[in-house]
Amino acid sequence: MECQNYGINRTLERENLNLNPLQRGGVLPAAAREALYEFGDGYSVCDYCAGRLDEIPKPNIRGFLDDLAQFINADTVRTVHGAREGKFAIMHALCEPGDTIVVDGNSHYTTHLSAERNKLNMIEVPSNSHPEYRITPEKYKEVLETALDEKGEIKLALLTHVDGNYGNLADAAKIGKICRDAGVPVVLNCAYSMGRLPIDAKAFNMDFVVGSGHKSMAASGPIGVLGLKEEWADLVLSRSSRHEKKELEMLGCTSRGAPLATLMASLPYVMERVSKWDEYLKISRYFAAKMEEIEGVNQLGIKPTLHDLVRFETPAFHKIAQNHPRRGFFLYEELKKRKIVGIKRGQTEWFKCSVYGMTQEQVDYLVNAFHEIAGIN
Amino acid sequence: MECQNYGINRTLERENLNLNPLQRGGVLPAAAREALYEFGDGYSVCDYCAGRLDEIPKPNIRGFLDDLAQFINADTVRTVHGAREGKFAIMHALCEPGDTIVVDGNSHYTTHLSAERNKLNMIEVPSNSHPEYRITPEKYKEVLETALDEKGEIKLALLTHVDGNYGNLADAAKIGKICRDAGVPVVLNCAYSMGRLPIDAKAFNMDFVVGSGHKSMAASGPIGVLGLKEEWADLVLSRSSRHEKKELEMLGCTSRGAPLATLMASLPYVMERVSKWDEYLKISRYFAAKMEEIEGVNQLGIKPTLHDLVRFETPAFHKIAQNHPRRGFFLYEELKKRKIVGIKRGQTEWFKCSVYGMTQEQVDYLVNAFHEIAGIN
Ligand SMILES: Cc1ncc(COP(=O)(O)O)c(C=O)c1O
Ligand SMILES: Cc1ncc(COP(=O)(O)O)c(C=O)c1O
Repeated sequence: MECQNYGINRTLERENLNLNPLQRGGVLPAAAREALYEFGDGYSVCDYCAGRLDEIPKPNIRGFLDDLAQFINADTVRTVHGAREGKFAIMHALCEPGDTIVVDGNSHYTTHLSAERNKLNMIEVPSNSHPEYRITPEKYKEVLETALDEKGEIKLALLTHVDGNYGNLADAAKIGKICRDAGVPVVLNCAYSMGRLPIDAKAFNMDFVVGSGHKSMAASGPIGVLGLKEEWADLVLSRSSRHEKKELEMLGCTSRGAPLATLMASLPYVMERVSKWDEYLKISRYFAAKMEEIEGVNQLGIKPTLHDLVRFETPAFHKIAQNHPRRGFFLYEELKKRKIVGIKRGQTEWFKCSVYGMTQEQVDYLVNAFHEIAGIN
Repeated sequence: MECQNYGINRTLERENLNLNPLQRGGVLPAAAREALYEFGDGYSVCDYCAGRLDEIPKPNIRGFLDDLAQFINADTVRTVHGAREGKFAIMHALCEPGDTIVVDGNSHYTTHLSAERNKLNMIEVPSNSHPEYRITPEKYKEVLETALDEKGEIKLALLTHVDGNYGNLADAAKIGKICRDAGVPVVLNCAYSMGRLPIDAKAFNMDFVVGSGHKSMAASGPIGVLGLKEEWADLVLSRSSRHEKKELEMLGCTSRGAPLATLMASLPYVMERVSKWDEYLKISRYFAAKMEEIEGVNQLGIKPTLHDLVRFETPAFHKIAQNHPRRGFFLYEELKKRKIVGIKRGQTEWFKCSVYGMTQEQVDYLVNAFHEIAGIN
């Protein structure tokens, strides 16, 4: 048989300005590109494994995990395949089928899937209404307390630190405290925050934090981070009865290859950028403000934004689409002409985007392009 | 804080002759190295995702999975994070905690962990005795039938196609038929075979096959393959009730990044090498025969070997170690001097190794080195 042509290139997305929020935090720095070269082959990180991935001395995975734990202020850290696999593992270790957990209404679909795959029921904390969609501590408390009254036991609570729809940053420390006071272990989903903004698991009162290497930590996918408080290590990192070194929820080991090498190589770079989060945020706010100069472009979510992912309602562009010969495709095509990608083809009523990591010049170029397309120049 | 030095290089293992069986089948061809370059960043394969990883058109994941399904003669194929994650997903979908499954006595520890993480009981089919350790169809049948008599129901059976201890190749077609006749769904663990030797899920009478990209398919880790018969698709690939496109056991999507791009890029190369498996095997047999010319070096497992992974008992080297100033380290050090790596430091009583993918000249060089070290030149 003959293989089809798989089109294994990504020139368009690599060489143009990519506004897709999913892609902004996973761009590799040079050190990680080198790691990819060194550790590209198969089970590359496993040469010096004595049975435990997290204890491998060469490359120094053990030292890396210690540094990472310190960086996010968690007692213990493991790498997993992604944020979702981290959430699944926590739920699998703590809950039984039929148990109920509480999650925020801005949860990512992978939270729902992790729960459903574990046969758990979910009670959701609704956000406040349009246009803010904020998860408030007050509402979280109310729903958690009602859930406890009704169910008697809530095995786990989950909070999305920054959600993927509005880029809203939740008040982790307050909601963490509410859960702690209620005696409910709580997970913070940091897929969109860890590696962008400072994470302090202890200050946030969190039992668990999960992160996403490919999403926000300048790593090659798939890889994630699971951080936990010492008191959970026995349960979540319990060992196999037969293979006493091997951790069950990790199926012995998780990220056996290049993604881990890139996560390691990127850590110094990630620590540096996290320390400058304020500057990154300033550029995102500038971008959002400039976009809102277009009449009929309105940012949703918390304002001014607390994250680089911003969602706009864009009746301005939708109106143009009605009469444009290319209809809904015009926006995508006009942007592409200007070497801007990452807004879905055909989408004009609203879009999410991020300028994370772009320079002031690039952002000005983008703003100018949108203004031009909207016809306000 | 300052990051430690993680020593992110692999020069020694990349530039020397590496006998570690774990590393032989995962070396990337040039096309996969290019894919790593193109798809190194974060969620790189996700630019054109409309909700389903397996249906992405660019890169052409959908077409790739069709080709791969044809190549291993399975009805449906998904990528997973590795062979173990494939086995876990199958068990999770088919079994309930407390259920019993039958596995062969040469199973990899990841089979045991997958079962234990799913809270399943295992009944093992013992291999025959030293020095062969073969899993015979007769024994498999006997144990399966007894298990069925005793338990009433066996939810799943698993067979290791080629095991990681002796490199024994099991008679998949016969044992598959035995399970089928007994009405027990059966998984073939092809971590050490898919990508090295021909796999035909249907001819093997298998309900499921799992493979390991980083182990045997010239892919960057972690990535695996899950192949299944159509009749299992509804169960194993069941969708989320809330997110109707998303497959639960995949947590929506699995290999969202570079490993998948390398697996795709390597497929033509892998198909080519699988078609020449006889030649690869011939070199491995030659190597084993030459090693056995050393008195006190004996191959274990099926003879002549049916796989490139061979395990030797090496009293010859153990004897030298007794009186050597470097004791047990002498073998590792003597090999390293000759630019040969992959045998564990300090190990002299026995070792596993593989010359998979090496040229005749390289193998002659290796044989010569071992003969020299054993003092028979
Ligand atoms: C809030 C949030 N959580 C989780 C995820 C999933 O992350 P991963 O791919 O690491 O599982 C995403 C990705 O889109 C996300 O936005
Ligand atoms: C027979 C066998 N099965 C499974 C595995 C695990 O493969 P993966 O890393 O893809 O889970 C191995 C790896 O050593 C193996 O030898």
